Amino acid sequence: MKRLFQTLTATALAMATTAALADEGMWTLDHLPIKQMQERYGFTPTAQWIAHVQKASVRLAEGCSGSFVSSSGLVMTNHHCANACLSQLSKTANYMENGFSAARREDEPKCPEVELNQLDTITDVTDQVMGATRGKTGGDRIKAERAINSSLEQKCVGGDAKTWRCDVVTLYHGGRYAMYKYRRYQDVRLVFAPEQSIAFFGGDPDNFNFPRYDLDVTFFRAYVDGKPAHTPDYLPFDVAGPKAGDMTFVVGNPGSTQRDTPWVQLQNMRDHKLTPFFGFLSELRGVLWQYSRADASQAKEAQDVLFGVDNSLKVYKGWLETLSDATFAARKIKDDDGLRQWIAADASRKARYGDPWADLERAQARSAELQERYTLIEGGRGFGVGGTLFSQARTLVRAAAERSKPDGERLPAFRDANLPALEQEVSSSAPVYPRFEKTMITWSIEKMRQSLGADDAFVHEVLGKQSPAQVADGLVDGTRLADPAVRKQLWEGGEAAIKASKDPMIALVRSIDPEARRLRKTYEDEVSAPISRAEENIAQARFARDGDSSYPDATFTPRLSFGKVVGWKEKGKDVPPFTDFAGAYNRATGADPFKLPDSWLKAKASLALNTHFDFVTDNDIIGGNSGSPVINREGHAVGLIFDGNIHSLGGDFTFDETSNRAVAVDTAALVEAIRKVYKLPRLADELAGKK
Amino acid sequence: MKRLFQTLTATALAMATTAALADEGMWTLDHLPIKQMQERYGFTPTAQWIAHVQKASVRLAEGCSGSFVSSSGLVMTNHHCANACLSQLSKTANYMENGFSAARREDEPKCPEVELNQLDTITDVTDQVMGATRGKTGGDRIKAERAINSSLEQKCVGGDAKTWRCDVVTLYHGGRYAMYKYRRYQDVRLVFAPEQSIAFFGGDPDNFNFPRYDLDVTFFRAYVDGKPAHTPDYLPFDVAGPKAGDMTFVVGNPGSTQRDTPWVQLQNMRDHKLTPFFGFLSELRGVLWQYSRADASQAKEAQDVLFGVDNSLKVYKGWLETLSDATFAARKIKDDDGLRQWIAADASRKARYGDPWADLERAQARSAELQERYTLIEGGRGFGVGGTLFSQARTLVRAAAERSKPDGERLPAFRDANLPALEQEVSSSAPVYPRFEKTMITWSIEKMRQSLGADDAFVHEVLGKQSPAQVADGLVDGTRLADPAVRKQLWEGGEAAIKASKDPMIALVRSIDPEARRLRKTYEDEVSAPISRAEENIAQARFARDGDSSYPDATFTPRLSFGKVVGWKEKGKDVPPFTDFAGAYNRATGADPFKLPDSWLKAKASLALNTHFDFVTDNDIIGGNSGSPVINREGHAVGLIFDGNIHSLGGDFTFDETSNRAVAVDTAALVEAIRKVYKLPRLADELAGKK
Repeated sequence: MKRLFQTLTATALAMATTAALADEGMWTLDHLPIKQMQERYGFTPTAQWIAHVQKASVRLAEGCSGSFVSSSGLVMTNHHCANACLSQLSKTANYMENGFSAARREDEPKCPEVELNQLDTITDVTDQVMGATRGKTGGDRIKAERAINSSLEQKCVGGDAKTWRCDVVTLYHGGRYAMYKYRRYQDVRLVFAPEQSIAFFGGDPDNFNFPRYDLDVTFFRAYVDGKPAHTPDYLPFDVAGPKAGDMTFVVGNPGSTQRDTPWVQLQNMRDHKLTPFFGFLSELRGVLWQYSRADASQAKEAQDVLFGVDNSLKVYKGWLETLSDATFAARKIKDDDGLRQWIAADASRKARYGDPWADLERAQARSAELQERYTLIEGGRGFGVGGTLFSQARTLVRAAAERSKPDGERLPAFRDANLPALEQEVSSSAPVYPRFEKTMITWSIEKMRQSLGADDAFVHEVLGKQSPAQVADGLVDGTRLADPAVRKQLWEGGEAAIKASKDPMIALVRSIDPEARRLRKTYEDEVSAPISRAEENIAQARFARDGDSSYPDATFTPRLSFGKVVGWKEKGKDVPPFTDFAGAYNRATGADPFKLPDSWLKAKASLALNTHFDFVTDNDIIGGNSGSPVINREGHAVGLIFDGNIHSLGGDFTFDETSNRAVAVDTAALVEAIRKVYKLPRLADELAGKK
Repeated sequence: MKRLFQTLTATALAMATTAALADEGMWTLDHLPIKQMQERYGFTPTAQWIAHVQKASVRLAEGCSGSFVSSSGLVMTNHHCANACLSQLSKTANYMENGFSAARREDEPKCPEVELNQLDTITDVTDQVMGATRGKTGGDRIKAERAINSSLEQKCVGGDAKTWRCDVVTLYHGGRYAMYKYRRYQDVRLVFAPEQSIAFFGGDPDNFNFPRYDLDVTFFRAYVDGKPAHTPDYLPFDVAGPKAGDMTFVVGNPGSTQRDTPWVQLQNMRDHKLTPFFGFLSELRGVLWQYSRADASQAKEAQDVLFGVDNSLKVYKGWLETLSDATFAARKIKDDDGLRQWIAADASRKARYGDPWADLERAQARSAELQERYTLIEGGRGFGVGGTLFSQARTLVRAAAERSKPDGERLPAFRDANLPALEQEVSSSAPVYPRFEKTMITWSIEKMRQSLGADDAFVHEVLGKQSPAQVADGLVDGTRLADPAVRKQLWEGGEAAIKASKDPMIALVRSIDPEARRLRKTYEDEVSAPISRAEENIAQARFARDGDSSYPDATFTPRLSFGKVVGWKEKGKDVPPFTDFAGAYNRATGADPFKLPDSWLKAKASLALNTHFDFVTDNDIIGGNSGSPVINREGHAVGLIFDGNIHSLGGDFTFDETSNRAVAVDTAALVEAIRKVYKLPRLADELAGKK
């Protein structure tokens, strides 16, 4: 459920035709379906309730969600959202495998790359953005968009980018633009993590399945000025957990959905992006799997990337199934045709909106010509997928060039508002594994040569007379970028330092950057800009015809979903909504990934075995929601989202209330395990609100 | 171009709507397009010419083609068709890497598993087969088909299965049935193979590309009673090679095409078979790639399987592209609709043919339910893909049970007519690599658990409380099936020996066999039989409407294609039809896979560098044609097919004369290299017809 490797998401388009049905919907916090909640559940949230759950929820900038669960900055999220931190902190010990708990607050170690964002305010900026881009196409549109976003974001941040983060968010595929202002926390420390074998009990075979028996939790703590953050808006733990039928809310950051994307784009995505990428990731999975089998240290080096790949492959498998479903395609085509005909039926509409579907088809034809090269060279897929050295070098080289430009002319990732996140990445003390890097770079370059052909001029430039393995060995053996101090120096040295650097990885990135930027510009001007314009036209037409009662597609920004604790029917059989501790012991085989950790085997006698472990709800969530709290009507935490069931994988494109289920850890399980398995009374007391 | 891993080919259907156009066509040798050849090229083959090229061509039963090129049983085929033999014979030396040449005939070592088939006669058996199955459905149809095929084949073999091989072949998807009778050669020895680095210069990056510089050749020799076979019908070498524009013939064994398959089946194949299998093979490729990187011995263990996977992945990528092409789909749909309407327009046709498209859709819906389980358990994909121990055990267990039944009731692979091939496989001295087997079995079982789910009863039965790796270790460490003598004993011991065996691999296969057979029977009765019946109805309707002037889809049986030496236009530029030796030296980088072997570097000065190396023709070929001779009007060999260009990958579904090209080694290159690089005057003289 973490937002991993889901980078291929086509720039999406359009907006909902009709108001969301049933418990469907990922609602923005300034536009909640108050009437539906009241009608379905007799519950109307107060402004205070909404503000409370908003402030108690956080986004993990790398791709997850979380929540404050004490007034001292304690943050609850998933274990799998802390994979990177756990790996990075495991210099001698293996926290990923063996878990971690800080004996005292002073022992809470800082995660090298975690950033938390707490949503402060949402401001509508539709008029400003649309005013700036009106009538513009191609490169002019891109330029205007960047300039207005930069100026709006700079004003919002007010010169204090360490504290505030501001993003202009495109909602409804261009129907609306909004400024999201977040409080930024970059000092985030590790408090507690269980063993991987219970956090991810059942492993990949059970991922996206239910019944489940996972304690997929990690606790962080946000710090400000070296002290635990004061977080008065937090979610007190309901230690009893929820009951079947209880109304539940999930506040989190669904990454991306494409429910309003026209069929012409989805079909193109399926055939020309998703299918090849599915093959690419599958092969990467094979490399990582075999790499991990060599020994424990190689397994440790690859585990974070392998987890992400496994997760993404299941997601894409589900996508491919939905996108190959004839009934689904027919419904999409009918929706699209309806709006297209509505526009065509009226001359003034035709003049205003044009034929955006025809524009999309043209842009996609151009995309098909550019896509592969663009992804490999500008997207970086041709160099060390899964590794970090290439992307570090790319960031350094790009940052030096971009930071010398006015803010509004930079590539968006390098605007002042984003520099703190980049600086954190560049300074990260996360270990770099040379053997692993060599493997990833060799494989990536081989794949690039396969795609572009051995006679391609760019491939010649990269390889010269060497093999991919020789190039990779030269880069990894020669570079000093594994050292954060060296990176910091290059970051601070700016363009002069980059120009003077003899580091082979910097030299590689420097030499390919003109071609990479050229590809980017062509792609943006000839694909992204026309698509964004066509999307906006479709969105506006739909608003004009249907009004704005629906929710926008997910954009990795805070959303609220409402629903209830409820099972579903699988091949005619009821799947009950809860599992319990006893089930975990029954299911354990002693062999990975069904091996319970020793701590759990030892604690068995002391545990209440009928304690609810995991449960399902029909809340509408998607990748990015990992780590979201499950909240009850009182605004208390009753669970922790960590997955969806197999039917949730179609949720990127459509929501089916009868079978799409969110999977959560029960707060009862969390408290029982923390007290009796891990014997951490102070943490349990903090969660229970006791001082 | 070898027929590798292309096992997913849906049971195909229907026949050509119109006579083949242009140089299109893989014609059966008893039904050549005499008129078209005369019209296009002014050439009419005599009966003698046809008989000569038929007898001079051979099929390699494992999935390739070849030809006799001397009267002493010398056989020319591709290096990549000899991969398995070269690996298997490489106990101490590495013949794959370093090449091989026998100093004297007595030094020609026997390939453990090569079988050659020389087509003797084709007999029409349509009336017999259709008479036996008329009006039958489901299991009854399968049973009747097996019984009639068995009885026809037994009669044809006449009790001498060591000498003769007879197969009933379904042509035109059931429009016609024919008995193919072959002379069988099982004593096949290795004469000469060059180094892998020149046989496959350019490696995977260049595979399916052109210009090429590959000496993809191996020479075998067929033996009878311990002496070189007497083969008066052979193709004398034209040592000058062909010229641009020359008419060329290819006689070989195209494996399978689906040009006449209705769109409903192709679409189903794309979405529900090809796409998942593409992911599966991609992951396997990653495992093998990383496995090979460990050291030279692991690379050697994996090379044959890796080559096959690479090759198949390129093929499937091409298939996916064609099957996602909207123009192609529209044409198919129009073709299908035309015939469907032709049937529907007439009551007697409706009564006779029914609505086979509706039957196909029903069978496919059932297939979708059964497919995954069937493939994993009965297809064996869940156990040691790429390894040999599981399949050896399966053959032994099945053979014991099947051989105790009457011939006509056995599974087709176990009919008397096929036993010599099975016995050769079982007795093979090919080495078994325990480490490699463990890797393949572990991975396969993991994938099976992923597909069926950890709670599946069958998965439980296989794994018990163990992990896939533990099961694999137990099987490989415990089994004695790596020893051909042990296998031979079990083969000869029959049911009693199998029942008594304590070998863990035999025990595994024994324990899963009832479930595997149950799945097979369900699949055959409810999917294969209805599809075969629907196909036959479509084929008969098409014959009735269009006559029989077209060629049948490929069936891995001997076919003739005619065409010419000609380049093509690539993105507006001419690709000339020939490369030469100089080009190979220019292209070499010194790094694998663009590293020329030492023998070639040393011989450079002595070579005529303008010697034609490889060339292209517009002959219509497909995987399985690898190793086919290119023949001129005089019936002489002028080249050796080893690949197709990238545009040939759509050739499974459609033939495009403007760009689909066959790639061949020039006989001029073969002779020059054999004389001057390898300094083998006796072999060169034998090829040149000198005693």
